[in-house]
Amino acid sequence: MQTNKPELFTCLSPALLNLYEAEKSIVVIIDVLRATSTIATALYNGAKAVIPVDSVAECIRIGKQIDSITAGERDGQIAEGLNYGNSPFEYPREFIEGKTLVLTTTNGTRLLQMALDKNAKGIITGSFPNLSAVCDYLVAQNQNVILGCAAWKSRVNIEDTLFAGAIISRIGKHFSINCDSSQMAASMYKDAKEDLFAFMKSKNASHYQRLSGYGLEEDIRFCLTADNANVLVIYKDGKLAI
Amino acid sequence: MQTNKPELFTCLSPALLNLYEAEKSIVVIIDVLRATSTIATALYNGAKAVIPVDSVAECIRIGKQIDSITAGERDGQIAEGLNYGNSPFEYPREFIEGKTLVLTTTNGTRLLQMALDKNAKGIITGSFPNLSAVCDYLVAQNQNVILGCAAWKSRVNIEDTLFAGAIISRIGKHFSINCDSSQMAASMYKDAKEDLFAFMKSKNASHYQRLSGYGLEEDIRFCLTADNANVLVIYKDGKLAI
Repeated sequence: MQTNKPELFTCLSPALLNLYEAEKSIVVIIDVLRATSTIATALYNGAKAVIPVDSVAECIRIGKQIDSITAGERDGQIAEGLNYGNSPFEYPREFIEGKTLVLTTTNGTRLLQMALDKNAKGIITGSFPNLSAVCDYLVAQNQNVILGCAAWKSRVNIEDTLFAGAIISRIGKHFSINCDSSQMAASMYKDAKEDLFAFMKSKNASHYQRLSGYGLEEDIRFCLTADNANVLVIYKDGKLAI
Repeated sequence: MQTNKPELFTCLSPALLNLYEAEKSIVVIIDVLRATSTIATALYNGAKAVIPVDSVAECIRIGKQIDSITAGERDGQIAEGLNYGNSPFEYPREFIEGKTLVLTTTNGTRLLQMALDKNAKGIITGSFPNLSAVCDYLVAQNQNVILGCAAWKSRVNIEDTLFAGAIISRIGKHFSINCDSSQMAASMYKDAKEDLFAFMKSKNASHYQRLSGYGLEEDIRFCLTADNANVLVIYKDGKLAI
């Protein structure tokens, strides 16, 4: 099939990224619960930048070097040596405006590093809170796209796949899509879109279980709601900023 | 959640198999279009055994060593040096009964080899033509299960995922399922089950496109129909047999 449209692929796990041509694509890093949602929220609320790091130790190290907020959780608690957690509600404007946030995120940072290593043409982060900004950008760029789900220790998860489906549902017609994962994501999103929260709950999604077990249902609801922090988040020189 | 049920996981691509504990599980090799469907059909029709190999060269080599039928395709044509193709319709009883089939299958054989390397507790093949036999066996064994989708060069595909969903839809209640991939597969199967062929077509599935491009719509229909070759196919000592 001849087409002049750029191509769009959905990569359901970091372990599959090497199957796609990141060097010819904009890679969207998707870590819905909660890293990329919290990143969008902090930046929307005026954070100067977010520095994603893959370990608590690195977070502490950078926190000592630059004036910043260090944040990250392990097992639902603020990690030892850090000051804040992973919830978007921890970063209102009155707190985060003008500050740099150093955030540990295991799955999202790993995927971001992989995209960097593969010389991705561009890297942005995506989440429901900034869904429209991501869609508008991807359409305007008119480049190949890889929707990169951060997953959970490489295991495919429902919420990142749903976000890929939301993107495809909105702007899929601007792309050539020959990718079963994309069709699966769009199909699931269609089933889920009337009430993403209820869908996650009904499917007993692993992250729903984990986070609701920590009493974080409001976090989940926020992270599944579109456009509450609608800014475009671009990665450049080790930082995420708008 | 405490439970005495064995666990079931869906592994959407061979590239993800290392995330799961094959050594504690029965691994179901799923390559719906068309390897595991053709294997079930040949065995149902009386083939003595099927020897799966990963290359045309290996197929030719074994064909010279033992009295057998060598089969495999490349780009929709019988591969040079082999005698038959990958279609289940090529293996009626009057042809295949009592014979050994040596079949090249890239994706399925790769996954099978990986499961062997990981010392899987057991290995069987699954396809819609032998859906009930697979379900009955897995329930009776009462062991952990990995539904292993052979995929296409490690890219997730719709039809193998649908088969995983069909298994879960039938026998999921006998297992503890904490696996988003399984939930996704079951959810998609629920959408698709009234007419799997129409679903594949409507989703523009990559294998639907490829095989229908070769005029193989009847193969696709057969491979999506339950229980036309309802035998349990077990791997042992390099051979698949019933």
